[in-house]
Amino acid sequence: MNSIERLTKLFAEFPGIGPKQAKRFVYFLITRSGGYIEELKKEIKELRDEIEMCADCKRYFVLSTQSGKNGNEIIKTCNICSDTSRDQSVLMVVGRDIDFENIEKSHSFNGKYFILGGLVPILDKNPEMRIRLTELYNLIDKFGKTGSLKEIILALDANSEGEYTGELIKSHLLPLVSKYNIKISEFGRGLSTGTELEYSDAETIKSALQNRH
Amino acid sequence: MNSIERLTKLFAEFPGIGPKQAKRFVYFLITRSGGYIEELKKEIKELRDEIEMCADCKRYFVLSTQSGKNGNEIIKTCNICSDTSRDQSVLMVVGRDIDFENIEKSHSFNGKYFILGGLVPILDKNPEMRIRLTELYNLIDKFGKTGSLKEIILALDANSEGEYTGELIKSHLLPLVSKYNIKISEFGRGLSTGTELEYSDAETIKSALQNRH
Amino acid sequence: MNSIERLTKLFAEFPGIGPKQAKRFVYFLITRSGGYIEELKKEIKELRDEIEMCADCKRYFVLSTQSGKNGNEIIKTCNICSDTSRDQSVLMVVGRDIDFENIEKSHSFNGKYFILGGLVPILDKNPEMRIRLTELYNLIDKFGKTGSLKEIILALDANSEGEYTGELIKSHLLPLVSKYNIKISEFGRGLSTGTELEYSDAETIKSALQNRH
Amino acid sequence: MNSIERLTKLFAEFPGIGPKQAKRFVYFLITRSGGYIEELKKEIKELRDEIEMCADCKRYFVLSTQSGKNGNEIIKTCNICSDTSRDQSVLMVVGRDIDFENIEKSHSFNGKYFILGGLVPILDKNPEMRIRLTELYNLIDKFGKTGSLKEIILALDANSEGEYTGELIKSHLLPLVSKYNIKISEFGRGLSTGTELEYSDAETIKSALQNRH
Repeated sequence: MNSIERLTKLFAEFPGIGPKQAKRFVYFLITRSGGYIEELKKEIKELRDEIEMCADCKRYFVLSTQSGKNGNEIIKTCNICSDTSRDQSVLMVVGRDIDFENIEKSHSFNGKYFILGGLVPILDKNPEMRIRLTELYNLIDKFGKTGSLKEIILALDANSEGEYTGELIKSHLLPLVSKYNIKISEFGRGLSTGTELEYSDAETIKSALQNRH
Repeated sequence: MNSIERLTKLFAEFPGIGPKQAKRFVYFLITRSGGYIEELKKEIKELRDEIEMCADCKRYFVLSTQSGKNGNEIIKTCNICSDTSRDQSVLMVVGRDIDFENIEKSHSFNGKYFILGGLVPILDKNPEMRIRLTELYNLIDKFGKTGSLKEIILALDANSEGEYTGELIKSHLLPLVSKYNIKISEFGRGLSTGTELEYSDAETIKSALQNRH
Repeated sequence: MNSIERLTKLFAEFPGIGPKQAKRFVYFLITRSGGYIEELKKEIKELRDEIEMCADCKRYFVLSTQSGKNGNEIIKTCNICSDTSRDQSVLMVVGRDIDFENIEKSHSFNGKYFILGGLVPILDKNPEMRIRLTELYNLIDKFGKTGSLKEIILALDANSEGEYTGELIKSHLLPLVSKYNIKISEFGRGLSTGTELEYSDAETIKSALQNRH
Repeated sequence: MNSIERLTKLFAEFPGIGPKQAKRFVYFLITRSGGYIEELKKEIKELRDEIEMCADCKRYFVLSTQSGKNGNEIIKTCNICSDTSRDQSVLMVVGRDIDFENIEKSHSFNGKYFILGGLVPILDKNPEMRIRLTELYNLIDKFGKTGSLKEIILALDANSEGEYTGELIKSHLLPLVSKYNIKISEFGRGLSTGTELEYSDAETIKSALQNRH
């Protein structure tokens, strides 16, 4: 394999990219100026250097140059986890970093987060390999001891993976939440923006009726 | 125009059908057996004969042969409107017959219905030409007098037409609902089946958070 | 089943129409004026009365009121087959009436046609049940005897069905065409309008190269 | 902007990639192992080092390690241009490297190539900025002098850009081709693989008829 073929193969691993489009990416790079290429290599490198996983919520965040170093020590919790003005009594559990970003962008939530790192397909035998169940357990244990945490909100996709993952988490956290008297709630179902009633399923209609306001 | 062209033109008025597919329909009919054609003509004719608009909810319903005639008088209310075992205190307002069908199929509602006959596009100048506003007003006045009606549920599409239509109805019914002390509610927003958080808009997320359970 | 359900079922047999859209068709008819319905029924009826299959080319054509009756006898060949100004030496074989229409609309051919009534899926065991092989054989025998027919052009879709059907016809007509010294040709392959070379397969490229001009 | 945002912006310049998918690429990289990232950086770097533009046909090719250096001198023509066993009498002009690759993969052509570097949109005022018109002129002048070149084949997309580009090239090369007595031909039109006659336009049908075989 030559370098065109090798890079095509790497790009073909990008999410949603097949070999045809991967090849187009390579030719795109060949025809781009050296400046763009240098920038691309630099940013890929810096991504690894600048990005840290938050010790608490497990999301990937950018170490800021000002606050990133504390003396010689790097701060390992993200800006949200270290923001004491946010509501410490609610923890929202989401699937992926990109879900977190989208929810945060909606400006509707001011509590804390936990990122599972994915969702679990139905009947998957090793859910601990897919999502951060143990880390979630430990974090809730830590917060539970302080007595500050009152509610865990499961904000998961409204599909079979999301539902299965929700069930897994609830049964896994059962002993903890009853010990610390923490409520577990789930994102409400109903009509999402754009939903037409003609094409809605029974569960959506039922929830929209229950959640009428 | 010959009969192929004339029939193509008629089929091209069917919802979602362009001239190409309309032509395919015509050739489909040409090659079908006489039996199918006879049945089709018969059913189109019977549709007009058997279908009646309900005097109350305005939905199209099939006159049943048993109950369709009462002496020489045809019963003009549908099976749901004349079913006294259904909850007379709630009226669900929907856009089209097909929405009614889908909601009824979900087995989540046991009250009465009203079919608007459509939705009103934003800024439309003559909403009364689009939907049955006056008929809805009159029906609620009639039910309101009996004191049985307690709630009107607006079950409209979660898009701009649905929202605009909801606002129109609320302002139009305002004097009536305050006179008879009837509550107006709307279908709840949230995650509908299949919704992924990565692609959800702020309003859906906000509603899903508020309606958490 | 009531008449809504029965008509929905009939519409669901239309090409490309599923039960959801069939139901929409029914509600569309319910809300249309009586005039439209009368016209629709009339045109469906007239389609059967006015349409005749041409005795020669087997295409469906509209009997014209002027020339449709000859004394008490109905003329059974279509306007193209009875048009002596068209080139009698070439016969174009197409799959469906709609292919004939599209080719005739291109104004690029002035010979005669034969409509197979479909194409044969690969490995289908009874091709005679799918297409008018025998009728084609007989027509060519009839034309061959007069000595006028010099070429048969197979104008079939450029997919596996079209290719398989082409092979079937060629082997089926072999004795006839050698007996009457008739050439069988096939529509040329190459770049069709809109084809991009990046997405072309080897066969298309090879043909486009051979047919360069 | 932090490094996630900066890299998202760079990926959003990739062909066919919007900001949402660009962001997914970034999170994909964050979660990939260091090994994948190292490989990706290395291949992007090597792409620029290993890829050379051929002095003759202007395509990007990989300098092979064996033949790439000739003493201290790098060979600047690609393996096809320097392959004397290929037919020196035909030159195929294509739009992009990816078109060349696809045609070469079809194993139907054994002559030489020239890559224009793109196609010219209709009415574009500076075609020389879009495609390598001057370089093509010079190459043909060079080959013309030797007397070996007999035919130039334009292998361009069968759309308006391809047709306009073809016209431009023909008028631009007119003096040269008459001087050296070189024929200019174009890829043939017809049914490309998958074309159905029902959906074909008049030009495709006309060409398929002319190119029948």
